[in-house]
Amino acid sequence: METVKYLLDETDMPTSWYNVAADLPAPPPAVLHPGTMQPIGPADLAPLFPMALILQEVSSERAIEIPEEVQSIYRQWRPTPLYRARRLEKALDTPAKIYYKYEGVSPAGSHKPNTAVAQAYYNKQEGVKRLVTETGAGQWGSSLAFAGALFGLEVLVYMVKVSYHQKPYRRALMETYGARVVASPSEQTAAGRAILAAHPDSTGSLGIAISEAVEVAVQREDTKYALGSVLNHVLLHQTVIGQEALAQLELAGDYPDVVIGCTGGGSNFAGLAFPFIGAKLRGERDMRVVAVEPAACPSLTKGRYAYDFGDTAGMTPLTKMHTLGSSFVPSGIHAGGLRYHGMAPMVSHLVELGQIEPVAVQQLETFAAGLQFARAEGIIPAPESNHAVASTIREALRCKEEGTSKTILFNLSGHGHFDMTAYTDFMAGKLKDFEYSDEEVAMALAGLPSVG
Amino acid sequence: METVKYLLDETDMPTSWYNVAADLPAPPPAVLHPGTMQPIGPADLAPLFPMALILQEVSSERAIEIPEEVQSIYRQWRPTPLYRARRLEKALDTPAKIYYKYEGVSPAGSHKPNTAVAQAYYNKQEGVKRLVTETGAGQWGSSLAFAGALFGLEVLVYMVKVSYHQKPYRRALMETYGARVVASPSEQTAAGRAILAAHPDSTGSLGIAISEAVEVAVQREDTKYALGSVLNHVLLHQTVIGQEALAQLELAGDYPDVVIGCTGGGSNFAGLAFPFIGAKLRGERDMRVVAVEPAACPSLTKGRYAYDFGDTAGMTPLTKMHTLGSSFVPSGIHAGGLRYHGMAPMVSHLVELGQIEPVAVQQLETFAAGLQFARAEGIIPAPESNHAVASTIREALRCKEEGTSKTILFNLSGHGHFDMTAYTDFMAGKLKDFEYSDEEVAMALAGLPSVG
Repeated sequence: METVKYLLDETDMPTSWYNVAADLPAPPPAVLHPGTMQPIGPADLAPLFPMALILQEVSSERAIEIPEEVQSIYRQWRPTPLYRARRLEKALDTPAKIYYKYEGVSPAGSHKPNTAVAQAYYNKQEGVKRLVTETGAGQWGSSLAFAGALFGLEVLVYMVKVSYHQKPYRRALMETYGARVVASPSEQTAAGRAILAAHPDSTGSLGIAISEAVEVAVQREDTKYALGSVLNHVLLHQTVIGQEALAQLELAGDYPDVVIGCTGGGSNFAGLAFPFIGAKLRGERDMRVVAVEPAACPSLTKGRYAYDFGDTAGMTPLTKMHTLGSSFVPSGIHAGGLRYHGMAPMVSHLVELGQIEPVAVQQLETFAAGLQFARAEGIIPAPESNHAVASTIREALRCKEEGTSKTILFNLSGHGHFDMTAYTDFMAGKLKDFEYSDEEVAMALAGLPSVG
Repeated sequence: METVKYLLDETDMPTSWYNVAADLPAPPPAVLHPGTMQPIGPADLAPLFPMALILQEVSSERAIEIPEEVQSIYRQWRPTPLYRARRLEKALDTPAKIYYKYEGVSPAGSHKPNTAVAQAYYNKQEGVKRLVTETGAGQWGSSLAFAGALFGLEVLVYMVKVSYHQKPYRRALMETYGARVVASPSEQTAAGRAILAAHPDSTGSLGIAISEAVEVAVQREDTKYALGSVLNHVLLHQTVIGQEALAQLELAGDYPDVVIGCTGGGSNFAGLAFPFIGAKLRGERDMRVVAVEPAACPSLTKGRYAYDFGDTAGMTPLTKMHTLGSSFVPSGIHAGGLRYHGMAPMVSHLVELGQIEPVAVQQLETFAAGLQFARAEGIIPAPESNHAVASTIREALRCKEEGTSKTILFNLSGHGHFDMTAYTDFMAGKLKDFEYSDEEVAMALAGLPSVG
């Protein structure tokens, strides 16, 4: 009947972040300047980020020390629990062993504070007064709002309009932490006005919101931009998840055959998976690593591995990644955090290296999985996390069919307390599946920038 | 900058509940049968509750063993963390030390699963198939829904109508766990129909919802009633909170001068406070114990200590408690869990014995306190818990004025993730204070039953 919990002592909390760049057989492709299309250097990023984060972005050191002040804040909720989902195993009647790392215990309710706190810390260190960012579902925005409150930084969030209206309580959470929230596209920026002129009814996208946030950030000396996923330093900060999971599985006397995470920009996935992939790259261990994305935003499974902008207006550097094209506006599925046209370049690189298996799942399957998980384990997963749950259930049922007992580890990246509308709509039969045709994807990709 | 966390090993989780009845200088007044007005015996309660819970209700043993299966479920989220609120102390610039026990880490987000799991367990043991209950804000209903899902019990919840409409996401949470939720007063019961006939626009009350639940429970053999507060056995199950806090404060090398909890029916308050009051009653320790209630439902501060029914229709046994009269319908403040006309008889008894200081606070003060707490500590408290936060801030500011450094412990009984409407309304200036005049209270009390 019981769910088994594996805790770590605070003294066993990781004191450094793990940088997968150190273990790569080949470095990822260079990042290009949006004006010159030439590889950028650290100075090019200085208007956007503090130098400490830029240096992490390009670092190839394996272990990067976590500042003591960041560790002391992490300790409020870290180490997060690792659970053996015995009740779910029983409900599925599977011989598989299912473990999940639960990041929803953070104050903002997801993995995002792992990087929000670090980013706020380094910005504060370098004298920044104000952070501007974008948010989709609101997990990132609320985490940066939380971190901003701790360090006395102003926070301005451009929130994708469909989520702004679909998730008023995420917005309320950001405002409770003291942040200012603006629906994107907005009239406040040239990028927003351009979109509204062309598409007055635009429901927004992460790509558009990023353009607005970047535009505002570069205008003032005391203001920097903060990104909640995609970039190397963001993924780096999330690796506390996988490092803890490794130590906790050791306590459990187990090791995963499959590691599963959902992917939007890639940060919660990378946070869990990179320390495991590192062990694989170093030849110490082997396992399958599965990245689960929504069929309605299939960058890894239907996109092209190509240079593209991170935003819609073409203001960000270009990175080589799996992309659906930066003008792609994904359908309004409830997993707002996964509705991004691109992918973390480091995740894409590892997919190309054959280290990661991408899969796409439909919305209805993810909510059915989330409901089954909630009734078994008591925790309501975020719609994003439901993608990992769905893939886990697929793997566990395959074990049952095949009569094999595999060990599955997945990242329960956040709770769904601010997403109950989605559950209500699902239970009322109002949600739909959605898939892009090859023609639609090809059309979106036709707009990719031509590089070199 | 940091918030300091005190964890306990699972092996240090309490293995018994603490029964304050064992340490009382005088027993509480007898419970009376609603028909005969004579003291009841265990058999009189058998249509409502399983015998194991009835025996706990009247037990005077100091330690009552927690069944291993209940402990194994507790371990999913227990021991809960005790935090030193250093960031709040800094924001208040107070010499006081502030500790809080955080019960919001449970799957349902409050202290309520401590008793929901125990009640579901004992009902299951005695062959019950279905549990019927009422809920105000929804914390209790969602906790019983969670526990019901674990034990395969059907759960039917009568939810106070104002909360049913004000808090659709709490309802969604109960439904996600598989429970059925009905707005009360409903047309489904004689009690509900009688209220609707007299007051077609009734927004409901806990007293009315209890009448409906009790009426349904007694109709079927396989169905029992479950109550989320007030009764001795419910308070008993919550004492894991205070027992853990005692052990955690010992780790911190500290002991409270003041222990604070919010009171509606009294269960989260008692859960934290009773183990401390026990030490006081046994002469081992001394401290102040403060029970904080809303000015809009002031049973302890303006009610009468008298025999009254627990419900509106007069179907429950009569207990001696601080009451505003069982027909009292409190104003629609957002702390729905505190809107109960009566009080746990054991809490009332201890107030009468001079062991507890009751105070009342206004709604606006509670939300201002909650907002300040959220920005300092990162956790959004439930509106109910904000009463304890407000009282804690009062005490801490008094320490600052007086230049004394007291140690304050309060119970953060749950998170406010499903109460963001209330925060939004507060930030928009839409909430109001509310206080009953002495005349209004006197009128409500005029309807008290005459006993012996």
